[in-house]
Amino acid sequence: MFIELNLQSDIPIYKQLTDQLVEGIASGILKAGQPLPSVRTLAADLGINLHTVNKAYQLLKQDGFLEIHRKQGVIVQPGNLPPSDQAFLDKLERDLRPLAAEAIARGTSQQELEQIIASLYERIQNPPSQGGASS
Amino acid sequence: MFIELNLQSDIPIYKQLTDQLVEGIASGILKAGQPLPSVRTLAADLGINLHTVNKAYQLLKQDGFLEIHRKQGVIVQPGNLPPSDQAFLDKLERDLRPLAAEAIARGTSQQELEQIIASLYERIQNPPSQGGASS
Repeated sequence: MFIELNLQSDIPIYKQLTDQLVEGIASGILKAGQPLPSVRTLAADLGINLHTVNKAYQLLKQDGFLEIHRKQGVIVQPGNLPPSDQAFLDKLERDLRPLAAEAIARGTSQQELEQIIASLYERIQNPPSQGGASS
Repeated sequence: MFIELNLQSDIPIYKQLTDQLVEGIASGILKAGQPLPSVRTLAADLGINLHTVNKAYQLLKQDGFLEIHRKQGVIVQPGNLPPSDQAFLDKLERDLRPLAAEAIARGTSQQELEQIIASLYERIQNPPSQGGASS
């Protein structure tokens, strides 16, 4: 797995984990139906608590990014990913609002913010290495 | 004050408070050098703990959005607001990254995300009522 945790960060570990798994899905590194390590294995690999991994997996299951099966274990959503519906766009706006407000207060232009977004779209959709599959 | 807290939200109260004060500065509703209520007064007005207001004020002081004087009390930064420097742009990118990743995973286009940003810039910079000063 490509997960890299920063134990010194202010961002809770479960959130770092969900963020990186969602980015893995967004980038295509994690493919539809692909199996993920069990809670126990991933916790051991990352040296973190079982409950932290379990919390991340459960949240991603609730959101529809993962499925958790008794036999197959944890897999990336094999069907349709959760949609870009009005509820999501509303949440996105709520989450973006304080970032935009601070940017405005500091004098960051709308164009600069849009450039950051464009750069993130580019880099997330074209990750440097697709799981080391190239020669 | 225009502060509206949502006690049911997942967002910590001190964060709601700092977000709304920064947006007040971004929108021009809070002006350079303007006095803010004391910790005690604001806590009583909002029905929240003194320490929560104090935490919000201290964080905004650290960031340079407020000054806290022994005699004048709490005032909006009377000089230059904190800049849109590389450290801020890097932090902005880190904060935007998981939002962009989820948007990509759900199929939200870059244009949709940029529209949300444009709409936030418009609405934050042109708030509906400038503190009720108009007739």
